Amino acid sequence: MTVSIIGLGLIGGSMAIDLKRRGFAQKILGVEKEPVNASAALKIGLVDEIVSFEEAVDAADIVVVAVPVGAAVKLLPQILDRFAGSGAKDKIVIDTCSTKAHIVRSVHYHPLRRRYVATHPMAGTEYSGPWAAMPNLFDGRACIFANSEESDPAAVKTIEQLYNVLNMRPIYMNSEQHDVHTAYVSHISHLTSFALALTVLDKEKDEKHIFDLASGGFSSTVRLAKSNADMWVPILSQNRDNVLQVIDTYIDKMGEFRQAIADYDEDKIRSLIEEANHIKKILG
Amino acid sequence: MTVSIIGLGLIGGSMAIDLKRRGFAQKILGVEKEPVNASAALKIGLVDEIVSFEEAVDAADIVVVAVPVGAAVKLLPQILDRFAGSGAKDKIVIDTCSTKAHIVRSVHYHPLRRRYVATHPMAGTEYSGPWAAMPNLFDGRACIFANSEESDPAAVKTIEQLYNVLNMRPIYMNSEQHDVHTAYVSHISHLTSFALALTVLDKEKDEKHIFDLASGGFSSTVRLAKSNADMWVPILSQNRDNVLQVIDTYIDKMGEFRQAIADYDEDKIRSLIEEANHIKKILG
Repeated sequence: MTVSIIGLGLIGGSMAIDLKRRGFAQKILGVEKEPVNASAALKIGLVDEIVSFEEAVDAADIVVVAVPVGAAVKLLPQILDRFAGSGAKDKIVIDTCSTKAHIVRSVHYHPLRRRYVATHPMAGTEYSGPWAAMPNLFDGRACIFANSEESDPAAVKTIEQLYNVLNMRPIYMNSEQHDVHTAYVSHISHLTSFALALTVLDKEKDEKHIFDLASGGFSSTVRLAKSNADMWVPILSQNRDNVLQVIDTYIDKMGEFRQAIADYDEDKIRSLIEEANHIKKILG
Repeated sequence: MTVSIIGLGLIGGSMAIDLKRRGFAQKILGVEKEPVNASAALKIGLVDEIVSFEEAVDAADIVVVAVPVGAAVKLLPQILDRFAGSGAKDKIVIDTCSTKAHIVRSVHYHPLRRRYVATHPMAGTEYSGPWAAMPNLFDGRACIFANSEESDPAAVKTIEQLYNVLNMRPIYMNSEQHDVHTAYVSHISHLTSFALALTVLDKEKDEKHIFDLASGGFSSTVRLAKSNADMWVPILSQNRDNVLQVIDTYIDKMGEFRQAIADYDEDKIRSLIEEANHIKKILG
């Protein structure tokens, strides 16, 4: 099996490592538009070769699109077009993007739509680029398959095998459900971290040297604020409506705390905290 | 040296472990009002004996008040009164509370004020109770000494030695600075986690089974939402003014994101994220 990976960042690079060393792919071709990243990916040994977009699509059994979702929406139809042009009927393309409704809609009427499998491997760190790629990143995490009934069953089966090699649990849902889900589970977490970082940075300008930021739970809560703008701008933009809805609920909840604290209403503060503690049951 | 620890939870229990095994205390006496916690503390071996409040104060060279700040404010003057009553001039009492202005003010005019050293060891986990106590909890973290000029220099020196044995770096500031500091570094982090948990729990009622909450950065961001109400209600209440100010800044920052996303203003979203990324420089 030859796998071509477009975008050799955290996700694409980490896939490359495990698909190769676990024997799923005999050959990994990489496409990377940043020359520095491309040469790093070669040096680190993430891929066997860096090739052009066209070579990558033509040589691959599976093409993995692992670029920010704004770019992915542009590339995906070009890849399906090239599949069609070459007459190849058994190639598969997948994406790994964090929003799904927009990209799925973008190829809905493409004649080769069924060779596309929409996936979202839910794993990552706050770091990016080929240097951030690591083995075992996906082990034990969930991979969402969106609208898989719109893909050829054989293609879905092959991609299930791919994610099985990465030790991921498949979850099936439609792309709209997915985007609601990720707005709650992932996108709002990033926004709360970004806003927390901005809040503290604002204060820190005035009061240098008093902060010892490694303490007090701050570092885990703000960790995601290190995340990359190239990735997050299109996610927040494409998932606008769901994200706005979650932000509004979130600001309401923060407002309830604000009011209770302003009123010295200790019973209300307690009941809000105890309700929040229920998250233990979900997180286990 | 005999150290009496009032409150055998995460902080008091963890102090007990390291002060004993590192040789600072020859004897550790514990006071614990919850019978279940008291017998657990004995069983785990956190303390040599469980004694009454009076016995603990009378037998100790150092009394450590490691209970939630609402209770600590009531106990501290009683301990100083008992020091005065016994005629002992070299006993020391410290507290470990997360807000300092209120407790420092509460004994400002006490005749034995100088035998009290106000400290805040900035370490912890989201767990509580004697079962949460662990060795090495404090290693490498910061300990704030608040208004230490109001304490006897010899008492401060002894307590510096105590925290030195716990491998903590001392930081000196006044109690008002401390409470601003912790509002930014710790209290708002907890509030963002509580609000995030409430937001997701709200949604989860409607849409069961679609959430895989271990993924997507959610778990690190929401970790602090497991924190205990007994501890956090008095902190948020006592540090009301600082906390309200930070919440307001925070809601403003979240509102900027909201507006930019609502407007599809990708340049603005990008600039907010890139500004938030500066937290990397501070966290190192």
